[in-house]
Amino acid sequence: MSYKKIDQQDIDFLVSLCGTRVLAGQDVPETYSRDELSMIRNYPEVVVEVLTTEEVAKIMKYAYDNTIPVTPRGQGTGLVGGSVALHGGIMISTVRMNKILELDDENLTITVQPGVLLMELAAYVEKHDFFYPPDPGEKSATIGGNISTNAGGMRAVKYGVTRDYVRGLEVVLPHGEVINLGGKNVKNSSGYSLKDLIVGSEGTLGFVTKAILRLLPLPKKALSLLIPFPDLGQAIETVPKIIKAKSIPTAVEFMEREVILAAEEFLGKKFPDTSADAYLLLTFDGNSTEELEKAYERIAHICLDSGAFDVLISNTPERQQSIWSARGAFLEAIKASTTEMDECDVVVPRNKIAEFVKFARSLQDKLGVRIQSFGHAGDGNLHIYVLRDKLAQATWETKLAESMQAMYAKATELGGQVSGEHGIGHAKQPYLACSLEAEHVGLFRSIKQTFDPKNILNPGKVC
Amino acid sequence: MSYKKIDQQDIDFLVSLCGTRVLAGQDVPETYSRDELSMIRNYPEVVVEVLTTEEVAKIMKYAYDNTIPVTPRGQGTGLVGGSVALHGGIMISTVRMNKILELDDENLTITVQPGVLLMELAAYVEKHDFFYPPDPGEKSATIGGNISTNAGGMRAVKYGVTRDYVRGLEVVLPHGEVINLGGKNVKNSSGYSLKDLIVGSEGTLGFVTKAILRLLPLPKKALSLLIPFPDLGQAIETVPKIIKAKSIPTAVEFMEREVILAAEEFLGKKFPDTSADAYLLLTFDGNSTEELEKAYERIAHICLDSGAFDVLISNTPERQQSIWSARGAFLEAIKASTTEMDECDVVVPRNKIAEFVKFARSLQDKLGVRIQSFGHAGDGNLHIYVLRDKLAQATWETKLAESMQAMYAKATELGGQVSGEHGIGHAKQPYLACSLEAEHVGLFRSIKQTFDPKNILNPGKVC
Repeated sequence: MSYKKIDQQDIDFLVSLCGTRVLAGQDVPETYSRDELSMIRNYPEVVVEVLTTEEVAKIMKYAYDNTIPVTPRGQGTGLVGGSVALHGGIMISTVRMNKILELDDENLTITVQPGVLLMELAAYVEKHDFFYPPDPGEKSATIGGNISTNAGGMRAVKYGVTRDYVRGLEVVLPHGEVINLGGKNVKNSSGYSLKDLIVGSEGTLGFVTKAILRLLPLPKKALSLLIPFPDLGQAIETVPKIIKAKSIPTAVEFMEREVILAAEEFLGKKFPDTSADAYLLLTFDGNSTEELEKAYERIAHICLDSGAFDVLISNTPERQQSIWSARGAFLEAIKASTTEMDECDVVVPRNKIAEFVKFARSLQDKLGVRIQSFGHAGDGNLHIYVLRDKLAQATWETKLAESMQAMYAKATELGGQVSGEHGIGHAKQPYLACSLEAEHVGLFRSIKQTFDPKNILNPGKVC
Repeated sequence: MSYKKIDQQDIDFLVSLCGTRVLAGQDVPETYSRDELSMIRNYPEVVVEVLTTEEVAKIMKYAYDNTIPVTPRGQGTGLVGGSVALHGGIMISTVRMNKILELDDENLTITVQPGVLLMELAAYVEKHDFFYPPDPGEKSATIGGNISTNAGGMRAVKYGVTRDYVRGLEVVLPHGEVINLGGKNVKNSSGYSLKDLIVGSEGTLGFVTKAILRLLPLPKKALSLLIPFPDLGQAIETVPKIIKAKSIPTAVEFMEREVILAAEEFLGKKFPDTSADAYLLLTFDGNSTEELEKAYERIAHICLDSGAFDVLISNTPERQQSIWSARGAFLEAIKASTTEMDECDVVVPRNKIAEFVKFARSLQDKLGVRIQSFGHAGDGNLHIYVLRDKLAQATWETKLAESMQAMYAKATELGGQVSGEHGIGHAKQPYLACSLEAEHVGLFRSIKQTFDPKNILNPGKVC
C-alpha cells in the first residue's frame, strides 16, 4: 500500500477543523515518536489533538479519501509500539478528549471519552462509592488505550479484564462513519459482538470515541498479605494451591528481592520487608472485616504449609499504599537499572507459571543475559524483562532475539498466549504469527481488510 | 446462492463416516424440523449425530466442497428458528457429542463437548463444589447452544452471561479447518478476539466442537425473597432502587399473578403465595448467613418502603425449589395456555424496564391481543409473549406483526437491543436490521462473508 505524504493542503484542512490543536513537522514533540518502552521509533507527519467524535470522523474520512495513514494515540504508555506512527501520516491524540460524560447510578455505568486517565476514572468513581475493577500497573494510561489492548492488571484474578467492563462503544470506522455498539444493557445477543472485536484490536479496526463502562459497588474493606518465601519456585508453586482453595483473592502478585531493591532505590522509599528471596503479595476485598479474615486465614495457612517464612498483614491504607506503590514502580525501576530492555508479556494457564518462570530464569545463565520478572501470578500473566546492561549492540540483538523466541515458544508449548495484556502492537507480530494456526492469522487479516480495506488505520500493527 | 440437493452419494459419504448415526429422508424425526417455539419449520434432508471434532470437520469440508448447507443443532430449545434447516441440506446434531472431558481444579476450568446439557454441567460441577453461573430458564439446552446465543439467564445481574465464562473454544470453520481460540488462560490480548466473535454468532461463523469454561467456587449459602406488590408497575419501579442500593442480588425476577396461576396449573403444584397482583423474586448468595442477612435486610426495607405488602423469605432448599421450579415453568405454562404464540426478548437499560413493560401492556388493549410477560428485571431483559388464543389466522398475523414492530421500536428508542439472550435466528432478522445502523449490519454481512464465503453454515440466520 502506498500512502499519500502530508502536504500543506492536508495541514490546512486539519487546521480548519482543529485550529491550534494541530502540530506539524518540527512542532511534533519527541514523545509522539515512540511509546514507553519499545525500540520502535517514527514521527507522525502531523499530530491532531482532537476534542470531539465529529472531528475524529471528519479526519478519518479525509484520511480515507486521500489514503493517509492514521495512528490513534492515548498517553503513549504502551510497550509494543502500538501507538507509534510507523508510516508517518496523521496521529490522532486523545489527550484533550478526556471528559467524564455521565455517571448513571441506576444502571451502574459511567460514560467517558477515550482520553480519560485510568487514575482519574478510578478516583472519580470511588468518590461516588463505586468501583472500576481493571487495575493495570500504569495508572496514567488512558481508558481508550486500556480498551485497545484489553488491559488486565492486578485484579483480574477476581474481577476479570477491561473487556468485562465495556458495555458500549462509540466507534469511528476507517472511512469516517460512526457506529454505536452495545449500550447500557446488561445482556446482548443481537448479532455478532463487534464491541468485543473492537476491544483488544489495538486501534486497527476503529477509533473508540466514547465508552460506556460497567461499575461495581465499592468494596468496603481491603487488606493485603505480604508473604516471604525462601525462593521464587516455592512462592509460585503455592499459587495453584491458593486457587484450588476456592477463596479467590483480588490479586496475587509475585516479586523477587532484586526487583524490590530496585524499586526501593527508584522510589527512595523502604519496602516493609526485604529479608527473603521471593514474595507473594495478595489482596482480599469485601464488605466486612470478618468476611476478609475468613478468606485470608485459610490462604495464610496454605502459604505457611508450603514453606512461607511468615505472613505479614497490611490492613491500614498507609501500609497497603507503601507496598502497592513499590509494586507499581517495578517497571520504571527495572528500566532505570539498565541501558535498554524489552519485555515478554505472556500468559500461561495458572498451573504452568512455576514451570515458565523456571524456564525463563534458566535462559539467564544459558544465554548470558540478565532477565528479571514480576507479574500476576494469580492469573498466569508474567512480565519478563530482558536487560541489555553493557552488551554491545550486535550481541544484545542476538541475545534478545534468542531469549524472546525461546520464551514465546515455551509459552505456546504450555498452552499460553503471546500477550496477556500489553497487546501485540508492532513488536510482537512475528511471535503472534508463530503461536497461532495459519488459518487463525488469516482470519485476522480478512477481518482487518473488511473494516479497513485501504489499511490506513494504525497500519503495521497486530497483523 | 444455489445449494446442491442431497443425493445417494452424499448419504453414502455420511454413512461411511458415521454409520447408523445418519438419519435421512423419512427417518428424520419431526422434532428436527422445528425448534421450541418458532413458527418456522423445515426438514433437513439428512441429520448426522456426530461424536467427534474430526467427523464435524470432515462433514463441513464435504459440504463446503459440494455447496451443501449445514445447520448446527443442539437440543433445539431455541425460540427464534436458529436451529431450523431453512434450506434443507445436512443437520449436524450434537446430542451424542456430550462428554465432560476435564475438570481442572488448578485452573478452575471445565472442558466439555457442545452437546453437554446445561443441567448436567451444573450438577457435575456442583458435586465438585464448583459453580457455573450462567442460568438460563431452559436447563435442557446444550452448552453449545448456550454459547451460540450467548445465553444469559437469571444470575446475569451478579455474574454476567455465557460469554463471561467461555475461556477457550475449538471451532470447525465452514471449509472444514479446525482452529483453537483462547485456552485456559485468564487474560488474553493476542490479536482480535475471534472467541468473542464466535460466542453469540448462532452457529453462522463456525461450529463449536469443544469449550473450555471458567468455574467459580460454589457459594455456600443462598436464599430467596418473594416480594408481593400491589401491581406490576410498583414492583418494577423498585428495581432501579435495588440496583442503586449497591447490594447486588444474584437474581431479580418479576412475575405476575396470572403467569403464576398458569404455572401452578401446568405443574399441578401450589406456589407459596398468589394473593398479590405482582411479585419480585430475589436471590442472594454468599458464603455466610450473616453476609446474606446484611445484604437482603437493606433490600427488604427498600421494597417495603416502595409499597411491597410483605417480604417472604425462603431459606431452605425445599422452599427455594418450589418457587424456582414455578419460575422455570413459566414459558411452558404460557405456551400451554394458548394455541400459538411468539416472543419478544428485548433488553433495555435497567431504569427503562418499567416504561417498557407499561408500554407492552398498553398494546394488549390497544391491539386487542393477549400479552403476557415475565423476565429478568435485574438485568433489563424481558420476555414478552403475544398469544394467539382464538384469533383467526389473518387477524393473528396482523396483530402479531403490529405488536412486535411496536415493541422493538420502543426498545430501540429506550437504548435497548432486539435480543437479550435468545438470539436473532431467522425470526428476528428484520427487527435487528431496523434497530442497528446500516453500517453495523453491513459489517455483520462482511464478517459472515469472510468466514463463510459460500454461505453454507446455518444460512438465513442473524444477517
